[in-house]
Amino acid sequence: MNSIQRFGNSRRWSDVVIHAQTAYWVEVAEDLGGDARTQIAQVLAQIDATLAQLNGTRANLLQVMIYVADLADVSTLNELWDAWVLPGQPPVRACVQAGLAGTCKVEMVLTAATE
Amino acid sequence: MNSIQRFGNSRRWSDVVIHAQTAYWVEVAEDLGGDARTQIAQVLAQIDATLAQLNGTRANLLQVMIYVADLADVSTLNELWDAWVLPGQPPVRACVQAGLAGTCKVEMVLTAATE
Amino acid sequence: MNSIQRFGNSRRWSDVVIHAQTAYWVEVAEDLGGDARTQIAQVLAQIDATLAQLNGTRANLLQVMIYVADLADVSTLNELWDAWVLPGQPPVRACVQAGLAGTCKVEMVLTAATE
Repeated sequence: MNSIQRFGNSRRWSDVVIHAQTAYWVEVAEDLGGDARTQIAQVLAQIDATLAQLNGTRANLLQVMIYVADLADVSTLNELWDAWVLPGQPPVRACVQAGLAGTCKVEMVLTAATE
Repeated sequence: MNSIQRFGNSRRWSDVVIHAQTAYWVEVAEDLGGDARTQIAQVLAQIDATLAQLNGTRANLLQVMIYVADLADVSTLNELWDAWVLPGQPPVRACVQAGLAGTCKVEMVLTAATE
Repeated sequence: MNSIQRFGNSRRWSDVVIHAQTAYWVEVAEDLGGDARTQIAQVLAQIDATLAQLNGTRANLLQVMIYVADLADVSTLNELWDAWVLPGQPPVRACVQAGLAGTCKVEMVLTAATE
């Protein structure tokens, strides 16, 4: 499949996959030892880093599917999110509570335009 | 990103994002005070309204990811869904139980073709 | 919508929907009587069969969103997954615990390139 571009693939998954002008990827905090606020802030910073790798910005985001381990963390998520998301150019967003492995507090599944 | 079209964006999210002939959006019932049946019916009506905004119909739907707060509501979901979905042209559908905020009974994440 | 191709549509959903060089589908084990290991192995085999229908291989996979009923099954999932996924060409993967109907242990939501 020459139409697929992959970044940073390990044995288990690719960090980013690009196809049909669309990038797909998943973020969890690199340091899962932090509390929810720390993990959410880290995930948002990691998204910025991935977008930069794609020569894009937060304006490229199409959809963000957010899984939180605890719905009590949604107010913190919203506080950090609202300060982070680009005014006038936010993505679609969904947020539900799901069971996450170990001490993981948040997992985000992202879709972005690459051109 | 001129390749992205957005409808109805607030500070936190866009109501609909379109890119590469594909629309992405999320629906929860506008009135979260109703029971599961009421909320599901309302979400399906809201999807119709969004599809109309996109100059489309239920035939445009590609994928519907459904989160229900209680798996006991799936039989009601199926009853309303089966009467609503277009015969011969249904989307792909997944449905799982997840934790939803407050009194929200159902959240749907949608992908549709725009052309 | 002539731009959409559907495979195997029942009243409730299509088995596979294709649009804009992208295929969307959902897999749960055809036999929900088995334990987690059996169901996961069956789902991976079913993905192979669907990919063959699409004239593709595991290299076509873009994103796999995995819902498990019990996070204790993730080690089994990883064991079977790592042996199954194509080295150097893995998709993006997310995995969370969600409530699944009846005896269902795993549900996978797939996105793949068709060309």
